[in-house]
Amino acid sequence: MGPASTQDSLAERLLAGDKRALARAITLVESDDPAGWELVREVFPHTGRAAIVGLTGAPGSGKSTLIGALTKLRRAQGREVAVLSIDPSSPFTHGALLGDRIRLTDHFLDPGVFIRSMANRGALGGLSEAALQAALLMDAAGKQDVWLETVGVGQAEIDVIDHADTVVLVLMPGSGDSIQALKAGIMEIPDIIVVNKADHPLTDTMIREIRGVLSLAPQRGWRVPIVKTEALRGEGVEELIGKLDEHRAFIEAEGTLSERRRRNLEAEVLAICTARLRRDLEARLADDASFAGLLDEVVARRLDPASAATRILERFES
Amino acid sequence: MGPASTQDSLAERLLAGDKRALARAITLVESDDPAGWELVREVFPHTGRAAIVGLTGAPGSGKSTLIGALTKLRRAQGREVAVLSIDPSSPFTHGALLGDRIRLTDHFLDPGVFIRSMANRGALGGLSEAALQAALLMDAAGKQDVWLETVGVGQAEIDVIDHADTVVLVLMPGSGDSIQALKAGIMEIPDIIVVNKADHPLTDTMIREIRGVLSLAPQRGWRVPIVKTEALRGEGVEELIGKLDEHRAFIEAEGTLSERRRRNLEAEVLAICTARLRRDLEARLADDASFAGLLDEVVARRLDPASAATRILERFES
Repeated sequence: MGPASTQDSLAERLLAGDKRALARAITLVESDDPAGWELVREVFPHTGRAAIVGLTGAPGSGKSTLIGALTKLRRAQGREVAVLSIDPSSPFTHGALLGDRIRLTDHFLDPGVFIRSMANRGALGGLSEAALQAALLMDAAGKQDVWLETVGVGQAEIDVIDHADTVVLVLMPGSGDSIQALKAGIMEIPDIIVVNKADHPLTDTMIREIRGVLSLAPQRGWRVPIVKTEALRGEGVEELIGKLDEHRAFIEAEGTLSERRRRNLEAEVLAICTARLRRDLEARLADDASFAGLLDEVVARRLDPASAATRILERFES
Repeated sequence: MGPASTQDSLAERLLAGDKRALARAITLVESDDPAGWELVREVFPHTGRAAIVGLTGAPGSGKSTLIGALTKLRRAQGREVAVLSIDPSSPFTHGALLGDRIRLTDHFLDPGVFIRSMANRGALGGLSEAALQAALLMDAAGKQDVWLETVGVGQAEIDVIDHADTVVLVLMPGSGDSIQALKAGIMEIPDIIVVNKADHPLTDTMIREIRGVLSLAPQRGWRVPIVKTEALRGEGVEELIGKLDEHRAFIEAEGTLSERRRRNLEAEVLAICTARLRRDLEARLADDASFAGLLDEVVARRLDPASAATRILERFES
């Protein structure tokens, strides 16, 4: 069997919802294998159906447990679910504690649930692209809910969360950094705010603080709900599912969904272009002995970084 | 007077330590004016002398107050100081509270202190580059201490903090997110950890947690000190200055300083190249009517983002 027919069959198996085909496809994309890009090209017309929900929040806020609880309810509704975790502290990823992993065993064995993690490091500038490709593959494989799990307030996380149709910020009481980030305008106002671990005595204080921040932010149309959950015991999760569905209906009715997707796809195309240009540049420099010499000049403060860049680009473009 | 001689005199005034020349120079760099890059080229041989200290920590941890207190002590030692703040919640920047600004008035009027903020948004991928150029200009202007103030754990912040010779993480008791980020390995272990607002009852709990995290991290040579401060009252700041000087002496003696600087300058050269490639690409696409058509195809799911990127790059490179 030649490579073309193998690939056809991988695409077919993926579109039929085969879990192993999906896993293989994401590995191809993650390792930047041309076959992976080819596969996304093939299945792309079958995407756009999944509800892509980004869950962001500091490590320890309980995002993974919450995703576990949400998954359980979505499965009970008969929907297929995929989780893409790019949080290195998440039990879905390598930084796992055994105890957390055990709580997820049910889902690992369920053929209707697909769980995948991606590294938060190493993929210089390319993590967001790989994450989108993976989400598209999950969508093509018939997953109706794709959960994107990310940490924190940085640019890399923002780039990933931009692929989501609905953004959920998960906070836990007593941890003020995220609220400060919202207040300072570093973090965009999400679509839904969850206060998880809501059995904590500081829960109501935190909710008051969040209301304070939201009252200052311009809210057009959609009013950001605050949902209290105790993900470990499943409390509040049904209400959260309700809010997710409401938000989905809202952005579909208002046309915001297609606007968001257009803007994000444009950013994505540009980011893929930039990542490829950078990769080509690095490959050429790796083979180029004069680059080390140029760098020596910079380190000796005889040549400034911008002039060194100019010289490199002149050579690269010629 | 022609543009060349104006520029010579700006460089001369900058090297003589003229505050207004420095402000003008940074504006040129920030607005990506070719005259700014030319100026950096001219003064670059006079750089490399300043101690560049990055202070990072969540909004509200008191970084700005701490920088104010450190500045006061450095001025008493007769050293010249520059602050580059890229924290939008900082009183040095626009997100300021009046009360915080007032505390800094002394320094604003001191000719030996230069304070500048940079926006955390909009400068897609270019913030880190502009920040390095600004730090180089401050260094060339004879500032012996350059404080780089950043927030959070994201990639943009990490890129900026990589320009620092010494990295200080500022924590406040009761705010666990940063510790979680350290524990999860999202945030690199800094060179010095400060627990600010140390009059808080949870200070000792936090210090125990930090010790726990540090005991798990590989520490070769330099043992990361934990310094308790109450920046508002100046307490612990003298000890922090001592640790900063110790770390500086350590990295100079071990050769780590020149290694770090070489690695960072290399990353910088590549980042400038990439930013310019992206800017050129965007400029060409802005003039290109067929780009909108290509994007329509992507939105309609008839053309996948990677194939769209390939088509654009083919045109760009031809």
